[in-house]
Amino acid sequence: MKIEGRHYRTIWPDRNGGVIVIDQTKLPFAFELKRLETTADAAEAIRAMIVRGAPLIGATAAYGVALAMRTDASDANLDESGRVLGATRPTAVNLHWALQRMARVLRPIPPRDRATRAFEEAAGIADEDVECCRAIGEHGAAIIRNLAKRKSGGPVNVLTHCNAGWLATVDWGTALAPIYVAHDSGVPLHVWVDETRPRNQGAALTAYEPGAHGVPHTVIVDNAGGHLMQHGKVELCIVGSDRTTAAGDVANKIGTYLKALAARDNGVPFYAALPFSTIDWSLADGVAEIPIEERSSREVTHMTGRTAAGAIETVEIAAPGSPAANPAFDVTPARLVTGIITERGVAKASREGLLALYPERAAA
Amino acid sequence: MKIEGRHYRTIWPDRNGGVIVIDQTKLPFAFELKRLETTADAAEAIRAMIVRGAPLIGATAAYGVALAMRTDASDANLDESGRVLGATRPTAVNLHWALQRMARVLRPIPPRDRATRAFEEAAGIADEDVECCRAIGEHGAAIIRNLAKRKSGGPVNVLTHCNAGWLATVDWGTALAPIYVAHDSGVPLHVWVDETRPRNQGAALTAYEPGAHGVPHTVIVDNAGGHLMQHGKVELCIVGSDRTTAAGDVANKIGTYLKALAARDNGVPFYAALPFSTIDWSLADGVAEIPIEERSSREVTHMTGRTAAGAIETVEIAAPGSPAANPAFDVTPARLVTGIITERGVAKASREGLLALYPERAAA
Repeated sequence: MKIEGRHYRTIWPDRNGGVIVIDQTKLPFAFELKRLETTADAAEAIRAMIVRGAPLIGATAAYGVALAMRTDASDANLDESGRVLGATRPTAVNLHWALQRMARVLRPIPPRDRATRAFEEAAGIADEDVECCRAIGEHGAAIIRNLAKRKSGGPVNVLTHCNAGWLATVDWGTALAPIYVAHDSGVPLHVWVDETRPRNQGAALTAYEPGAHGVPHTVIVDNAGGHLMQHGKVELCIVGSDRTTAAGDVANKIGTYLKALAARDNGVPFYAALPFSTIDWSLADGVAEIPIEERSSREVTHMTGRTAAGAIETVEIAAPGSPAANPAFDVTPARLVTGIITERGVAKASREGLLALYPERAAA
Repeated sequence: MKIEGRHYRTIWPDRNGGVIVIDQTKLPFAFELKRLETTADAAEAIRAMIVRGAPLIGATAAYGVALAMRTDASDANLDESGRVLGATRPTAVNLHWALQRMARVLRPIPPRDRATRAFEEAAGIADEDVECCRAIGEHGAAIIRNLAKRKSGGPVNVLTHCNAGWLATVDWGTALAPIYVAHDSGVPLHVWVDETRPRNQGAALTAYEPGAHGVPHTVIVDNAGGHLMQHGKVELCIVGSDRTTAAGDVANKIGTYLKALAARDNGVPFYAALPFSTIDWSLADGVAEIPIEERSSREVTHMTGRTAAGAIETVEIAAPGSPAANPAFDVTPARLVTGIITERGVAKASREGLLALYPERAAA
């Protein structure tokens, strides 16, 4: 993806042994890069949502291990870096997948070789994510093209929730990759961008992306999607996922479930787009089994934005003294999901559907 | 309702021919009264949401006509005041009901008697609203009491959307009246308060009310209700309504429909609480027939709150340059509504159900 004509990824190593990321807490008002020097920096980047999105969190965790190996490549520090990074976001299965992969590759080799190998492996994780997202984009774009053919005129209206765009990955995105691929190939489309309270990743980040890329889009509050679907203004929903069960239940940013209910009630297809690493094959019942992160109530009671004078300011928006709860994710049951778009194709949201794309898992 | 121990209504005439309202745009950070001197003041109070909520809008419109009669009680000015006030909020059926009632009472009498009579009639509308809301509270509290009996322990958790509390009426509220009546009679309950973007009337006003009244409550983002229902944390939803069809379709603040879908999906009873004046007997299909007000996109892209320094500040929260859409209401089809709580009792959300409470309408 490009910003002001220049191609960027969301994470890359610099020449001095550090790692550069885009500080997503500064978007959409400022485009700033941040250098990660230590494992603690990487952990803080994940925790503070300087980087966010399942695939990018995975890549950041991998680089976080590499940063640890640069200064102390002992077994103890390998364990410690995995522990510190693994504790940052309990819901993100990619995080644990990436940490396990790094440990598996690094543990058998001599400590003196670990730093170089760790940076190579982290780069490999990043490159694989780019290719994976591109493939998701191709498979999802086919769905959009089919809808465009069936529509007698006007753009295909796609609703998305949260940010599963290129800012959530290393490049391309997951839920937005089909939109970029379809748009780039000339399919007329328009994106309804859920603002996605409480952190507003939709209004701040998802709106920023197609804005930079030239895709027509409109920001709406999270309350509006049902009304738009009732009135035939949405042809397709595509969301990302932080964790998907083997049965096709989709954990994603809080509110996704409500949009899926509205999609079903109005006959609008509802897809989740996600890489294989998001699928947790050990889980069957997402609502019962996926732990949901409870984040700070301050995310609900306060809001950060830019004043007319150009300053970034945080304002209190709820009645002073009222308590607030902040469950960060919800689970959309497979029965509400039309299909799951992965790098291998589009699966029915069921164990059979996912196993058809990943037959190697049937043996597992 | 009381604020700092003193009883208030939301609107009342003062001794000098003006009308006092609570400036709800200043809540929850400041409690300020505003004096309305002219019809234009009343229209602006409605338009700028200094007063909001269907019943209070009706009472304000009635007093707006009275203010007009005070300076010029001609037929022409009676018409003009109705026109100016009627144009402020197209979705609010109470507004037109109150204006029609004022015109019906005032037109037949001599202009010299109109000012006094207009203030009397407006006061009558206000008093009737208080009695009506109290009755809604009694009928709705019976539902909460039944749920409390069936629950083996802990409070009854009631989710509400937007503000249909006493600030939306002259006193008591509609959706919150059952909560106040139940709480005052000793039923343990807890209110989940949807923040209700884009204007955040939930976080700002609904949270303020039970806070002042001592009812346990928790603010959540609009995205969270479905997740809470999936996990058995909501026993009941009660919302207000700006306009309800004769068939029981409920127009209310945008996002209500999404919560109703989640309630149905999880077996949670979903009620709308509303006074008779909210029912538009001329409408059958709410989704098709109720016009939905599109408000300023700035309500979506900007947010107002209080800074740490105590100043009221507006911040931009969306990607600069991204367009935004702002449909202000949606329609929840009767099939998703468990029942409609009115001043006469609880009706099934259907023509038959509503006619059973309002048999005089069957002849109409």
